[in-house]
Amino acid sequence: MKKIAVLGYGVVGSGVVELFYKNKAKIEKNTGSELDVKYILDLREFPGDPYADKVVNDINIILNDPEVGYVAECMGGVNPAFQFVSSCLKAGKSVSTSNKQLVAEKGDILLQIAKENDCNFFFEASVGGAIPIIRPLHTCLAGNDISAAAGILNGTTNFILEKMFCDKMGFDEALKLAQELGFAERDPSADVDGADACRKVCILASLIFGKHVYPESVYTKGIRDITLQDVELAQNFGGAVKLIGCTKKLDDGRILSTVMPMVVPNDSLISHVNGVFNAVMVWGDGFDKTMFYGRGAGKLPTASAVLGDIIDCVKAEHTVMSHEWVNTNSTDFVAGIDAFEAPRFYRTNSFDAAVFENAAKAANVTLEQTAENGCIISSCDNASSDAFVKALEEAGAEVLAQIPVMSD
Amino acid sequence: MKKIAVLGYGVVGSGVVELFYKNKAKIEKNTGSELDVKYILDLREFPGDPYADKVVNDINIILNDPEVGYVAECMGGVNPAFQFVSSCLKAGKSVSTSNKQLVAEKGDILLQIAKENDCNFFFEASVGGAIPIIRPLHTCLAGNDISAAAGILNGTTNFILEKMFCDKMGFDEALKLAQELGFAERDPSADVDGADACRKVCILASLIFGKHVYPESVYTKGIRDITLQDVELAQNFGGAVKLIGCTKKLDDGRILSTVMPMVVPNDSLISHVNGVFNAVMVWGDGFDKTMFYGRGAGKLPTASAVLGDIIDCVKAEHTVMSHEWVNTNSTDFVAGIDAFEAPRFYRTNSFDAAVFENAAKAANVTLEQTAENGCIISSCDNASSDAFVKALEEAGAEVLAQIPVMSD
Repeated sequence: MKKIAVLGYGVVGSGVVELFYKNKAKIEKNTGSELDVKYILDLREFPGDPYADKVVNDINIILNDPEVGYVAECMGGVNPAFQFVSSCLKAGKSVSTSNKQLVAEKGDILLQIAKENDCNFFFEASVGGAIPIIRPLHTCLAGNDISAAAGILNGTTNFILEKMFCDKMGFDEALKLAQELGFAERDPSADVDGADACRKVCILASLIFGKHVYPESVYTKGIRDITLQDVELAQNFGGAVKLIGCTKKLDDGRILSTVMPMVVPNDSLISHVNGVFNAVMVWGDGFDKTMFYGRGAGKLPTASAVLGDIIDCVKAEHTVMSHEWVNTNSTDFVAGIDAFEAPRFYRTNSFDAAVFENAAKAANVTLEQTAENGCIISSCDNASSDAFVKALEEAGAEVLAQIPVMSD
Repeated sequence: MKKIAVLGYGVVGSGVVELFYKNKAKIEKNTGSELDVKYILDLREFPGDPYADKVVNDINIILNDPEVGYVAECMGGVNPAFQFVSSCLKAGKSVSTSNKQLVAEKGDILLQIAKENDCNFFFEASVGGAIPIIRPLHTCLAGNDISAAAGILNGTTNFILEKMFCDKMGFDEALKLAQELGFAERDPSADVDGADACRKVCILASLIFGKHVYPESVYTKGIRDITLQDVELAQNFGGAVKLIGCTKKLDDGRILSTVMPMVVPNDSLISHVNGVFNAVMVWGDGFDKTMFYGRGAGKLPTASAVLGDIIDCVKAEHTVMSHEWVNTNSTDFVAGIDAFEAPRFYRTNSFDAAVFENAAKAANVTLEQTAENGCIISSCDNASSDAFVKALEEAGAEVLAQIPVMSD
């Protein structure tokens, strides 16, 4: 019998243990192997917990036990997770992690160690929680040249934006509700300022394009500046404001990765993704486009993805199924935000449509939609957008918000 | 170098060859193996085709060539595909197929042969075309107890229903347009009468519940009876009519599988899936729900899925990754349509709301929404629905259409 060790007995780790024992018979049938959780690594004690006897607080017990073939890392953070995971892989134990920070910062190294030691390093849970996205990208869609991926990678901000959109709440009120419901931390910065989505973009970009994209290479802007007025005007234009993480290959071959609020037109499925749900659209030459949708966080949803990885590890014994990406020690392949092009949404004070028309002519951009307090223009770069804003302001208009529009 | 054989050089087969050569370098990097297409099996000749020299018309050439490790079956139909695929698997060659009829009718046997011969039988392309759904179900989501899957499994009917919904076309006009655009066959029966969706439901049901569900066990109703008036009334009630394939486990453990038009409320993402796109929602205990969306048919989309399978076969050399399901030689585990429960939509001639209220009371069902020419009632079984219809008719109302409502 092969044994599993779970590192970290917090929300996700306890979810992994709970879901494993709930569906143990089914999982064993699926893998064709008897399986059990042998150790749970945590510095805390869990008196009264049904699995308290499995808790150990020394990683060496796990590293030195040849019975342990599979490790679920659910601790979070880079240290000591990185050392623990490295050591497990070096000992030939396949690892599944839910730790997006670890993968975003150290994925290249860990994938390399796994390969050298003939075992797997999987991280399905690190992007989109329960949503199958990592494995489909490097298996089902692997015959394609993938050009871009974009979507809602953070459930907290999506919940807040939906409350603004549907219930006409202001940002602060919606954030407070998210905190009360446990969807947002007391310090909500990692969610609302985009750092969480940024890590997930790094993982998607690295996986799709084969080169490690670090968080510093992702243009990241959160949703703190989004007002109810922005959301309402976007709604009038037939769209919803969403925090969109995106990575795409430009015509010159460079990779542009961004996290920013965008207006998503209603004809894109992404605009209809509400609540704490996540969704990622992927574009490629063979399949055209495909979208993955589901819960991006939570105890059992995240555990579901970790367990799926473990099951694949068991089935793929001695087969290195995990993908790899390289650290090029260069950021030459990364484009800066100056290379960004998109249609744009502007909110202004109220005035005559002629002001928009004249400014568009002056800046050589194309108006798509206008209202008395805003407009949408066709895709352009930042320089053209700046010229349009300048022309508007010279005509006496005040530009209160500008938000790029997502193209499908 | 391991070689690939493609069986059938029609739309899908030629797509597989085209996409393979377009992305050959990327695929070889991904698999870590040099790969090439050695044979294309077809009875026809293809003078002038760039790969004409690879065309053979005798399956034995492929069976007897030990260099051929992977076979893409793109012929369609059960015969001779079944014999060819069986023989390939018995020769230890892994097979990927896009042939839903073959999988729906012979999947259990072929999976067993693959297992006995230490190779893989994959069929990602058989459900939802390009959409990664089969592999995520038996890998990423394998730690869960999956309770149901439902969605849009046929792009042709979805295109027709969208044209009715958005462009106010009648069924015949929309079908004609679909035929003109090449989305529907001259004989559209397999699509509009539900047989195509039925096969996909069989595959999903068999995969999820582990027992082969045959087409005869799926209650199947197409969209020929759907009128523009039905679609418009559903729209007024806040929903869209879609052809929904569904398989679910009932409380008594039996499996109920259906294909039928349903009214999908707008708060379900499924209602926003338009054009020839497909989407499948899956429910399970750990992940809650997740949806997969993309192109359900077409040359390169289908080829994308077949190639993804081949890549997995190459990576999983000597590891049987494919799932299996058994033929129980019984249909005791299959529930009939009498076990079906759902909210219901009715379209009637116009009359007073009191008629609906009295009929609901008489039939002991709960009205949810009413209009002057129809209503929606809460979930009930067929007997209650029949009683409601009878009560309406006794009050002089004419029931012009009844359509179940999909619950999320």
